[in-house]
Amino acid sequence: MNAQDNLFEKVLKRDSLYRGKYMDLERFHIKLPDGRTGTREIVRVKNAVAVLPVDDNNVTHILRQHRPAIGKTILEIPAGLIDEGENAAQAAVRECEEETGYKPRKLTELLTYAHAEGYSTGFITLFLATQLEHSNRFNPDETEFFEQAELPFDTLYGKVRAGEFIDSKTILTVLLSKELIDKP
Amino acid sequence: MNAQDNLFEKVLKRDSLYRGKYMDLERFHIKLPDGRTGTREIVRVKNAVAVLPVDDNNVTHILRQHRPAIGKTILEIPAGLIDEGENAAQAAVRECEEETGYKPRKLTELLTYAHAEGYSTGFITLFLATQLEHSNRFNPDETEFFEQAELPFDTLYGKVRAGEFIDSKTILTVLLSKELIDKP
Repeated sequence: MNAQDNLFEKVLKRDSLYRGKYMDLERFHIKLPDGRTGTREIVRVKNAVAVLPVDDNNVTHILRQHRPAIGKTILEIPAGLIDEGENAAQAAVRECEEETGYKPRKLTELLTYAHAEGYSTGFITLFLATQLEHSNRFNPDETEFFEQAELPFDTLYGKVRAGEFIDSKTILTVLLSKELIDKP
Repeated sequence: MNAQDNLFEKVLKRDSLYRGKYMDLERFHIKLPDGRTGTREIVRVKNAVAVLPVDDNNVTHILRQHRPAIGKTILEIPAGLIDEGENAAQAAVRECEEETGYKPRKLTELLTYAHAEGYSTGFITLFLATQLEHSNRFNPDETEFFEQAELPFDTLYGKVRAGEFIDSKTILTVLLSKELIDKP
């Protein structure tokens, strides 16, 4: 569905409210379906990828990281922004190597989703990474601090189902990987 | 895990970059685990709820809505911000009534997740709503335009698994409701 549908809200103008390092804040002036106009505050961010690396013993390689936005240190799967000139799969392989030290020989694309469709332009593409081999590209960003963690996939799945994980990319990736891990 | 862990990043100061109608943009000055300092741009938003209403015939009552941030008209489950003085369950019942015209007599809390833990303070709590009865509180916001849609749960689940839905709240809620719908 697009321009033709009767719910479409045409963006008449975009004002820049703030230009940041990681995001821009804009005000969209939109034409509502009934002809009136309205505004929406929109965050413009780069798209991202997240990847669940699972080795031949069904052990997952994930991270423990602090997230100042929510004030919590959480377990989560490797993730990062898609760089200029990269596609999502290339970004997933790079993030996997840099954050876990493993390079996947097999990458399965699971889903691309909008993480905050109400106010953000950002999409995240999720991957399952398998057939891991050691990489020499372990290279976390110098302002990124995390610890590596290893969990059997079934343990990880159980913790996700028990509500112990709180970020959408990890929860979705684990739920969507279950059948692929069980019946490869 | 919290202040004691060795990944903790203490927030030293919060600068307000922009105060908006729906969100505030702030710059967090943080102390990194190695003692250096850094900054993070953080969006402060209200927490939200999303709710999947499923009637006694296993038909779901969802919405088609345009989302200017991503430029798409999408099918999604009812959702909205938690108002002042409300808890998540109360917000879920209210949004369900206002957006679908049905009041759930049973509400099952599924999960609370951070939708953009890298840059947003926001959490969303997901609910399954069942034992629906007609409500007289059908009352969409006057700047909210949507159409109602009805889909059998199994059809909705199939579409989610096929990647036809793109918002995290709908995908997560449908995936997490499956077992509860199949074995109530």
